[in-house]
This record gives sequence, structure tokens and C-alpha cells, in this order.
Amino acid sequence: MPRYRLILEYDGTGLVGWQRQNNGLSVQEILETAALRYCGKKVTVHGAGRTDAGVHALGQAAHLDLPREASPDVIRNALNQHVKPHAVTVLEVARVADNFDARRSARGRVYRYRILNRRPPAALERGRVWHVGPHLDLAAMQDGAKLLLGKHDFSSFRDSLCQAKSPVKTLDALEVTRAGDEIQIEARARSFLHHQVRNMVGTLKLVGAGKWKVRQVSEALDARDRRAGGPTAPAEGLYLVEVIYPPT
Amino acid sequence: MPRYRLILEYDGTGLVGWQRQNNGLSVQEILETAALRYCGKKVTVHGAGRTDAGVHALGQAAHLDLPREASPDVIRNALNQHVKPHAVTVLEVARVADNFDARRSARGRVYRYRILNRRPPAALERGRVWHVGPHLDLAAMQDGAKLLLGKHDFSSFRDSLCQAKSPVKTLDALEVTRAGDEIQIEARARSFLHHQVRNMVGTLKLVGAGKWKVRQVSEALDARDRRAGGPTAPAEGLYLVEVIYPPT
Repeated sequence: MPRYRLILEYDGTGLVGWQRQNNGLSVQEILETAALRYCGKKVTVHGAGRTDAGVHALGQAAHLDLPREASPDVIRNALNQHVKPHAVTVLEVARVADNFDARRSARGRVYRYRILNRRPPAALERGRVWHVGPHLDLAAMQDGAKLLLGKHDFSSFRDSLCQAKSPVKTLDALEVTRAGDEIQIEARARSFLHHQVRNMVGTLKLVGAGKWKVRQVSEALDARDRRAGGPTAPAEGLYLVEVIYPPT
Repeated sequence: MPRYRLILEYDGTGLVGWQRQNNGLSVQEILETAALRYCGKKVTVHGAGRTDAGVHALGQAAHLDLPREASPDVIRNALNQHVKPHAVTVLEVARVADNFDARRSARGRVYRYRILNRRPPAALERGRVWHVGPHLDLAAMQDGAKLLLGKHDFSSFRDSLCQAKSPVKTLDALEVTRAGDEIQIEARARSFLHHQVRNMVGTLKLVGAGKWKVRQVSEALDARDRRAGGPTAPAEGLYLVEVIYPPT
């Protein structure tokens, strides 16, 4: 059966996350239902990674096997027709080798976290940003972010439910920028621990708010204990931007 | 009674527009209810202009009279508390002179229109953009926009319900730009006719899609007849960005 890779955009609001669950609607279920309507067969859609409830995607990746060949554009348009009325869109479809696996073939993931940093709450961007009223010190957050770069035991930023075998990860980039009222934190790594980005963001927010000194980020990292890290930033500010694959 | 100017952000989705109406919830009603809860008196909130159902604002302006003086920050925070759970936010409050009038004192308005120009429909930006699948020719749209600049009789771009005394308006700017999949059209004038921006956008979209020649924009303008203009672009892509006042 021919295998296809999907690149996906979705609004995570109101969904239980990527993975199929009994307690609500998931992105996976929406796509598998669309695929069934398109090809008439039960199909499993394998994601590059799970996103949590409320987390958004600008470029999630997934793969699926279809019973017959079709042009990528035909598949994309058909799936987009059948996902309606859900806020999930197939941006791209590509024919891939039978051994391509959206999760295992990935060489990197890029996440973006959006903080709306102003006194008035969000109106237009509600559910798309973390609203933080008190002014955050950008330079301090940037200094704190630098301390997390590289290969570390990230146990202090790892959710207790994390199923990864090792807490050691290599953080390739963690960039903190401001444009107007918005602070963005972009993180890149081969892979992340469960809640790692949101826990790093929750920690950098404490630094930005002056509640932590910059050096406390290193102390938290060195503790290798979740209780030493900052709180988990809300899901609604997080976007899976891109899953990186080797050139084919 | 002291007069205050409000700068407002709102998500127009699901609202009947700025003005109070019997058939649904308006921004005006949300703000007047919040003001009543704050000061205990019935207060009229006067907008700089009406936005239609579904139109958003990044910087609508309004004024209201309150029974007693209070600091602008206190008023802003109280109103933001009382507008909950609606997607309306008071960005700024300023004490203004008794003869300030949000509509009559305005010297200009800036609107932005967002077109998502790609085959796959919007997921994250659903309700915030006009989705146009076929590729639009940016240069042609820019050429068409130039023909609308300046002082003209805009009858061809005026809704039949428009209550303005004269169809003659001066369009100070109409800029068409592209960033990635998104085309933005920004319009600036002292004031606009009803649906003028959406009708100009609907016309420029025909030019971008190759259905109209650029020169047909001039022909439409010269006809001074709504039937000669292009269709009205949907409300959901339109944002009132700013209302301009003389320096105080």
C-alpha cells in the first residue's frame, strides 16, 4: 500500500490533543475519519509526535498508508474536504518510501511559544497566546535561555508522565524575541521530553518577571528534579511549527 | 461628568457588529453592560464608527461619560474585568475634553484586510482571514489599488444602505503586500463609505485572479454605480486598525 506524508495545521482549542482518546475529539481521530470517508477503508494516521490538549500546529507531520495510489494534490483536497467542519487542514501531501515513519524518521522538531505581554487581556488572540500582564524582561529571559542550550539531563523540565527512556536531550536552539506586545520563544531539538518546552517557558517567565535570578535556571537544571523547575506554561500558547526530515 | 476615550480590540466573530441591535450581541452592548457594572449607572458608549457583524478591531475608538473621575488604569482594568467572558478588550483609557467626540473628532481611519491565499483552507486563522484558493497576482492588485487613490466619487464601492451624505471620499493609502501565504490590503482615509473597504478588496481580488484587467478598476470607479464594482469581500478578513485623532 502506498505511503504518504502529511503536513498539518490545526487549532488545538477544544481538542484532546493529537492522540485518539475516549474523553474527546483528537486530531488523529479527525484525520482517520476523513481518510475513511476518502478511501472507504480504516486507516491509521501516525503522527510525528503527540501534541497535548489545546496545543496548536503550524506544521505537524504524519504518515498513512492508502489502499491505492493517487496524486498528492487529489489526496490533500479530498482530506481537506472530509475534515470539515474541524479546524484541521492538510497543507501538503507527499508520496514517501514504505520505510518512512513520521516519528522515527524525524531529525528535529521546532516549537514556538507565544506570550502576550501587556496588561489588557487577549481578545483577538484568545486561546492562541499565554497572557502575562506584568512586564517581562526580555534580556533576562534571553540570558536564562542560553543556560538551557546544549546537551543536558532535563529531568527538571520533564513531566512525570513522560515515557522517554532517557531524560538527556540536546537543545539546539532556544530563541527569545519580542515584537510589540508579544514575546516568542522558539525551541529546536531532535526531540523533546513531555512538557519540556512548556516547562522551560514557565521557568523563563519567572526569570522575565524578576522572580528568579538568571543563574537559578542553571541551578534548576542541575537539580535534575521536576520540583526544581518552574511551572508548566499553558497549552494554548504552544505551536508545533515544523518537523524536520532528512532530504529525500 | 468626566469624559474618557477608549481604544478597543475585539474579535467580531459571532457578534452583530459595533452597534446595539435587537437580533444579537454587539460590542456596544458588551461595553455598556461593563460600564454599568463598573459605575452603577446607565452609560452610552459612542464609537468612532460602526463595524459590521464579523468585522474585527485592533484599535477601535469610543468615548463615554462616567459619573465620577477615576484614573485611566483603574477604569481600564475594571472594564476589562466586567466585559468577561466576551472577546472584547480595552487597550487604553484616556481622559479627554468634554467636546471630544470619538466619531466627529476623528481625522482618519486605518483598516486592514487579510487574505489567506493558498489552496488548503484556514485552520488556525479561520474566521480571521478571507480564504482565496487560486493564486492572486500581487503586482496586478497593487496596480489596481493605485487607481483608487485620491479623491473620487466612490459610488461603485458603496453599499446601498450607506447613509453618508456624499459618495465623494479621499483615499489616502491603499497598500497591497504579501508575506508568505497572506496578502494584506491596508486602507487609510479620513472616512469611508459603508462597505467601501470590503468592496474595494472584492474588486482587487478579481484583478489578482485575472478575471478583471487592471484598467477595469478605473472603469468601475468612473461608472459611479455599485453594479459596476466587484463583490463585497467577507467581513471576517477585515480589521479596524486605528482611528486617528489630532494631537491634544
